[in-house]
Amino acid sequence: MDSIPILTLKRLPRYLEELYRFKKAGLKMVSATKIAIFTDVHMTQVRKDLSYTGVVGIPKVGHKIDELIQAIEQCLNWNDISSCFLVGVGHLGRALMGYQELSKKGLRIIAAFDNKAELSGMYFQGIPVYSMDKLANLLSRLHVHIGILTVPAEAAQSVADIMVAKGVIAIWNFTPVKLTLPEEIIIENIDMSSSLAVLSRRVAERLHVNKGK
Amino acid sequence: MDSIPILTLKRLPRYLEELYRFKKAGLKMVSATKIAIFTDVHMTQVRKDLSYTGVVGIPKVGHKIDELIQAIEQCLNWNDISSCFLVGVGHLGRALMGYQELSKKGLRIIAAFDNKAELSGMYFQGIPVYSMDKLANLLSRLHVHIGILTVPAEAAQSVADIMVAKGVIAIWNFTPVKLTLPEEIIIENIDMSSSLAVLSRRVAERLHVNKGK
Repeated sequence: MDSIPILTLKRLPRYLEELYRFKKAGLKMVSATKIAIFTDVHMTQVRKDLSYTGVVGIPKVGHKIDELIQAIEQCLNWNDISSCFLVGVGHLGRALMGYQELSKKGLRIIAAFDNKAELSGMYFQGIPVYSMDKLANLLSRLHVHIGILTVPAEAAQSVADIMVAKGVIAIWNFTPVKLTLPEEIIIENIDMSSSLAVLSRRVAERLHVNKGK
Repeated sequence: MDSIPILTLKRLPRYLEELYRFKKAGLKMVSATKIAIFTDVHMTQVRKDLSYTGVVGIPKVGHKIDELIQAIEQCLNWNDISSCFLVGVGHLGRALMGYQELSKKGLRIIAAFDNKAELSGMYFQGIPVYSMDKLANLLSRLHVHIGILTVPAEAAQSVADIMVAKGVIAIWNFTPVKLTLPEEIIIENIDMSSSLAVLSRRVAERLHVNKGK
């Protein structure tokens, strides 16, 4: 499987969203130009990105929408649901356990872990919660490759270390911590704190300036 | 209020997390060097970032932890809870409505909106849900400045347009859509789809390579 550039991977879901809309609207064919206009990405870039999917368009006509959707979903590995574990059943963890978009996009949380004794044995959205001391053993036994990290900052590194030691190759990190892990481990960070920090500060700056006027 | 560089704003919450931990551990003072080690940011950068908070450290001793926490929280506008509206009460929207970290970090969702008739009049986590046709009117009346966007992609731009027309100056955008809005509008994007796309693909590439061996 060829490696696809990271920026292409980040744009493919945007194309998909538009393709789903075109399909819903009853269209059968689409040109790269049209995708470019609707996603606000340059046409040359769209063409280049689409070339990674292996789908060949018809000159002056474009691509079959169904074929393109299937090819992009395949590229993103969305057809092949990967099982994963989630560690940290707080507010954010529970939110993700209930977020059904994940399974549509190839990720299925099959178990969750938390060190709060009162949570173990419970189910959220049909997903069982186990105590933390079961994590290492279950990771080894079930050959789970992906871990979602929604623990408090102070636990992030140590939990990530356990995951990696037991065969996890990719971590979706929702903590603000910059994890230190072997180079080959795939880490994707979603840092809501940083994003909110930027937003709050910019709003404060703007409102303050206006008051000063 | 002086403008703080965006990368500094993104690092400040990480420093805060560590400062909360130091405080919890009973420490009173902390040096920039120590913050640098724990956050994996270069010491020169930490010093520069902290200078924006206006707190002056004592040479060879460092900063009072309490003072630094307060100064950073102030910088991030976390003391001053800003009211905001959320539009799109699907899985992600509900998750955010239940995510209590937000109010700790200066953002309080006071109302939510959705075009599904069966949702209006309901409450999630104590937050009322109104029908979409009330959005414009309530935005004007309550002078809300921040909007959280958790609608499906196809509705993102039109809802954002309504928000901006009615006085919203900042949008926290959880849709994969690149919004086209007046330049002065503050937009922060959290694109979980892109992040998951990168993760899934990288995992597929890795597992495929290993199978090939």
